Amino acid sequence: MMGLVKDERKPGAVYKEVPIPSCGPHDVLVRVKTSSICGTDVHIYKWDEWASKTVVTPNVFGHEFAGIVEAVGEEVTNVKIGDYVSGEGHVVCGLCKACRTGNAHVCRHTKSFGITIPGCFAEYAIVRASNVIHNDPTLPYEIACLQDPLGNAVQTVLSGDIVGKSVAIIGVGPIGLMAVAVARACGSGKIMAVDINPYRLEMAKTMGADVLINSSEVSAMEAIMDATHGEGVEVILEMSGHPQAIRDALKAASPAARVSLLGIPTREVSIDLAEDIIFKGLQVHGITGRRMYDTWYQVKGLLENGRIDLKPLITHYFTLDQYEEAFELMTSGQCGKIVFKHDSAL
Amino acid sequence: MMGLVKDERKPGAVYKEVPIPSCGPHDVLVRVKTSSICGTDVHIYKWDEWASKTVVTPNVFGHEFAGIVEAVGEEVTNVKIGDYVSGEGHVVCGLCKACRTGNAHVCRHTKSFGITIPGCFAEYAIVRASNVIHNDPTLPYEIACLQDPLGNAVQTVLSGDIVGKSVAIIGVGPIGLMAVAVARACGSGKIMAVDINPYRLEMAKTMGADVLINSSEVSAMEAIMDATHGEGVEVILEMSGHPQAIRDALKAASPAARVSLLGIPTREVSIDLAEDIIFKGLQVHGITGRRMYDTWYQVKGLLENGRIDLKPLITHYFTLDQYEEAFELMTSGQCGKIVFKHDSAL
Amino acid sequence: MMGLVKDERKPGAVYKEVPIPSCGPHDVLVRVKTSSICGTDVHIYKWDEWASKTVVTPNVFGHEFAGIVEAVGEEVTNVKIGDYVSGEGHVVCGLCKACRTGNAHVCRHTKSFGITIPGCFAEYAIVRASNVIHNDPTLPYEIACLQDPLGNAVQTVLSGDIVGKSVAIIGVGPIGLMAVAVARACGSGKIMAVDINPYRLEMAKTMGADVLINSSEVSAMEAIMDATHGEGVEVILEMSGHPQAIRDALKAASPAARVSLLGIPTREVSIDLAEDIIFKGLQVHGITGRRMYDTWYQVKGLLENGRIDLKPLITHYFTLDQYEEAFELMTSGQCGKIVFKHDSAL
Amino acid sequence: MMGLVKDERKPGAVYKEVPIPSCGPHDVLVRVKTSSICGTDVHIYKWDEWASKTVVTPNVFGHEFAGIVEAVGEEVTNVKIGDYVSGEGHVVCGLCKACRTGNAHVCRHTKSFGITIPGCFAEYAIVRASNVIHNDPTLPYEIACLQDPLGNAVQTVLSGDIVGKSVAIIGVGPIGLMAVAVARACGSGKIMAVDINPYRLEMAKTMGADVLINSSEVSAMEAIMDATHGEGVEVILEMSGHPQAIRDALKAASPAARVSLLGIPTREVSIDLAEDIIFKGLQVHGITGRRMYDTWYQVKGLLENGRIDLKPLITHYFTLDQYEEAFELMTSGQCGKIVFKHDSAL
Repeated sequence: MMGLVKDERKPGAVYKEVPIPSCGPHDVLVRVKTSSICGTDVHIYKWDEWASKTVVTPNVFGHEFAGIVEAVGEEVTNVKIGDYVSGEGHVVCGLCKACRTGNAHVCRHTKSFGITIPGCFAEYAIVRASNVIHNDPTLPYEIACLQDPLGNAVQTVLSGDIVGKSVAIIGVGPIGLMAVAVARACGSGKIMAVDINPYRLEMAKTMGADVLINSSEVSAMEAIMDATHGEGVEVILEMSGHPQAIRDALKAASPAARVSLLGIPTREVSIDLAEDIIFKGLQVHGITGRRMYDTWYQVKGLLENGRIDLKPLITHYFTLDQYEEAFELMTSGQCGKIVFKHDSAL
Repeated sequence: MMGLVKDERKPGAVYKEVPIPSCGPHDVLVRVKTSSICGTDVHIYKWDEWASKTVVTPNVFGHEFAGIVEAVGEEVTNVKIGDYVSGEGHVVCGLCKACRTGNAHVCRHTKSFGITIPGCFAEYAIVRASNVIHNDPTLPYEIACLQDPLGNAVQTVLSGDIVGKSVAIIGVGPIGLMAVAVARACGSGKIMAVDINPYRLEMAKTMGADVLINSSEVSAMEAIMDATHGEGVEVILEMSGHPQAIRDALKAASPAARVSLLGIPTREVSIDLAEDIIFKGLQVHGITGRRMYDTWYQVKGLLENGRIDLKPLITHYFTLDQYEEAFELMTSGQCGKIVFKHDSAL
Repeated sequence: MMGLVKDERKPGAVYKEVPIPSCGPHDVLVRVKTSSICGTDVHIYKWDEWASKTVVTPNVFGHEFAGIVEAVGEEVTNVKIGDYVSGEGHVVCGLCKACRTGNAHVCRHTKSFGITIPGCFAEYAIVRASNVIHNDPTLPYEIACLQDPLGNAVQTVLSGDIVGKSVAIIGVGPIGLMAVAVARACGSGKIMAVDINPYRLEMAKTMGADVLINSSEVSAMEAIMDATHGEGVEVILEMSGHPQAIRDALKAASPAARVSLLGIPTREVSIDLAEDIIFKGLQVHGITGRRMYDTWYQVKGLLENGRIDLKPLITHYFTLDQYEEAFELMTSGQCGKIVFKHDSAL
Repeated sequence: MMGLVKDERKPGAVYKEVPIPSCGPHDVLVRVKTSSICGTDVHIYKWDEWASKTVVTPNVFGHEFAGIVEAVGEEVTNVKIGDYVSGEGHVVCGLCKACRTGNAHVCRHTKSFGITIPGCFAEYAIVRASNVIHNDPTLPYEIACLQDPLGNAVQTVLSGDIVGKSVAIIGVGPIGLMAVAVARACGSGKIMAVDINPYRLEMAKTMGADVLINSSEVSAMEAIMDATHGEGVEVILEMSGHPQAIRDALKAASPAARVSLLGIPTREVSIDLAEDIIFKGLQVHGITGRRMYDTWYQVKGLLENGRIDLKPLITHYFTLDQYEEAFELMTSGQCGKIVFKHDSAL
């Protein structure tokens, strides 16, 4: 089959013929219909420090997908040929304390689909049966592949109370934009979107943000204080990973606010714990992946009942062989979500 | 001033001249702009067993309102003349263990505005300053007076997780209809509305219900099981108080479901605790009033940011002197929410 | 091997030679060192209505055990020969929504060790590897086998806040007695033990109860109100399954109390939902099994660090062939926990 | 009356004659029986940067006390002359969003008893009636005055689950020592006490710590990893405020751990948010004061039922005029809790 392969430990990737992976007894073989590009894939493509420490090569990368099952391993009972599926990318041990107590998303023995084991930027992908998510037949392929990052957004938004509360979303890349939609769909109060990219801020408005704050033009902290009548914001969803943005966000938090950190800073961040966390009684949550599988069921409930519409988020479609153009576009920031159509019939 | 008074301990009420109540040092005097009729007011009007045990007479009744402050007591610091306000009707002691631990809504020393102390079906009402809720100037008077019952709905919907979960709302009187809207605004999964009144079921559809179940025509339990593909429903909001409906609802609950009981049964209900609660691992929550004041802030956040639209719920407007027609209509069930306009200029 | 078998669908059991069960690829074979008698085993022995509806025959019954692994299936990675283990008795599907969202204990596809599949009242038992619990080497065999019922007690006590709160434990059979110890070990306020059996009440005192209430002599409701200075009790752990006890307990609950129901009523219970649950704002939790596996880790933490001492709870030891005497004693109520020593060297 | 007064904005204090404070309509006048020295009092005494920014002078300082009510204001209903009381030191507005939603401890309008308004290091103290805590008559005066810092410890220990979980308490000054006792009383797993002071570590052992780690001799991180068999610790209670200790603690946290920060760093702390909080999925809680008044009721339940014994924590008693010796001793770290006896009869 043809697949997009990270074959060398340097920037770039190559689209080439690779063997169809074999389906173990606990696995299913999925014919991929759509996939989408995650920020993580951009890190892999560009080969930054995180990638060089983490990624196995050569490897078909990509981890956001939807497809149809073409074969199932002999021990598989929950999936059958023809099923319309997506999948959780964290392949966990299932037996450690974290896995056994609702924290599988931070299992220390995790293998990562598309990062340390083969992923979905190819005609076929192998998915462990226990990681399979069954999609509703009415869910379009291009939306179904977005459930993985939507899950990041959902876990971040819902790591604490949201109904009626003011929310600042710091960084409205694709997951931040999804978080705007999720917060709105889940009954949040005023939604403030903060970014330096006018294109993305405009998309945030489309997704449901009430206030747009271009932090290259105004002080985000002051803008948030203004928008909350000096009270400070009750929920901060940090999706930029930018050290100064994080510091500013903490200053703009109201007493007893919740701060959920999803964006990954590439260096240490200096924090005034006394003034900005302790005296305010803040709650700070580190967020990674998706709750396995509570978050997935929340995602399904929202999507299948039409509570959230991700269509406006998809700005571009490509085929896998157009990967260079796609990654360039992702890097530019002049896009929302980019979807690969693996099937020429789509 | 003119006021609607429950003056005798028998069915009915009288609209007559009463003294303007005097404003104590911790009170505010509100010129009432709108009020609305609660199911409780119907019980008072009709004088059922609950009313005869509970209500003080003679008393101006009514407890859902919005208005403008015309005077404030000398110790009041948080309200000023001209403020646009509504109010929480539970006047609690503030000093008992329940009050001091976030459970003021079940304070044993509660006085009830419009039930055991004078209420709002009059030109003026006295409200304790600590019970005052400030309304956003953009909130219409006829919506602002609905915040009290909306708070009941919000507390019921949000007494547990709701995002993505299937929900059955048993009984779609005015608060049930609000619960439909709240569940939808807060990201619930499929919403099933159950009632025997086609008028109300039709309104439930308008408010956002996905499935309408007329339990006089079909088995509610079977209809819920069908709508949930045999899984059972994850959240039950019981707003009918009907013993058989409650029993059926428990049968239709999925394992680990949450059941929030707001409707008041008038007799004991026989429950198969083993099969219907224990083996299923259910959570059953008794709901009364509104969280003081967490629920009010959720209500404000939802209303002021347009997450919920209660306009379609108001089907009729009256003036106070038309109270007989209004209560007759409420009794018929052929209405949504009924609002009294106290000000001829509205 | 020799095993205690429920072979006929009528009262009684037989101790006889049965084949050593074969160890599947996902199973481990355990040489049982100790086991203990659960109330459920008494139901099986006596063959009541629940047993006749639920139990598979012929079957080695018993589900509380500790032992040493003698063989492991070929796919097993988390257990090795020689490991000192106990096991969770709910053999669940692992793939349904309940299993995937932290509610495996109410999985609808559960097979029950010692009830619908072979159990531990024998020389050897087969345990699914994923259900294995590793015991600390310092934990005595006779304590290790008690972790299953201790888990019931722990889940019940901890299904809500307990620290500093007054607690009434209704029914102090073995699990109720454990709940006394757990509540005390977890920082509860005043512990009231309610039963009609003076022997068990005396044991409750030993386990840490502060107040003993013999409900055959005094009104439990009044005694609880007295012990709480008229406030009512904040946490009720219902372990009797007795309808009138449940009704009384609800009357004795304080506003906003939590009621955790573990005891299984054999008939419907008539409840005044309005007065006893709704107006009080109670939380009622159905409790079954143990959280998989959060509860087990709580159990381990309490036992291995000496926070709880179950020694005084074990009043009698038998060998398996003495089962008639043991079950008779259990039926009499003149005992605490009864342990079978399977190994003559113990 | 005689009182210990911070009269000048520089190190030191003076014990001198001051007027008996007058009792406003919402206040009570307490004859102080015992008081105790908080770390905050040491900051005031030594006059550090925090003190110079925060403290009002001249002012009777001290905020931990127990005493008997000698007069009550005319509007007071919940306290009467002769009552045995202590008090919450945060005098909050009661009307802001934080106060109305269970977060009064972070009210922005707080006045602080003994810091910005007169405190308890004197013969008499004025306490707002709504802040009064009634003590059980059996509670000794010298224990009752410790409830305020015990509340800090309780809030910190109980800001998340504790039962069965491994706990590292970083910094075992008086509140850290209380946290050891609270964690143990509330069923924690293994308790690791970390400090550089051998005297305090020895006291930690007395209060119930299972593992003592002198971080001036060994790596705290390594010692915690060893004590948890490489798993990392599940709950970190940070009570040192030391930047490097905080950094180390985060490294020693297990996946999904909870970190509660009570100690106040005097400068910014540089944190590797990616590795130490986000990828691990940690929860970080800023803790200040006590929950008003949930924490106080937990404290009462623990103390009045003998779940916790603070006697061993009190190492020294003084009279107020011996304040110089007392503060010197506190500074040395060669003490547990220091109590002032205000009444020569004690």
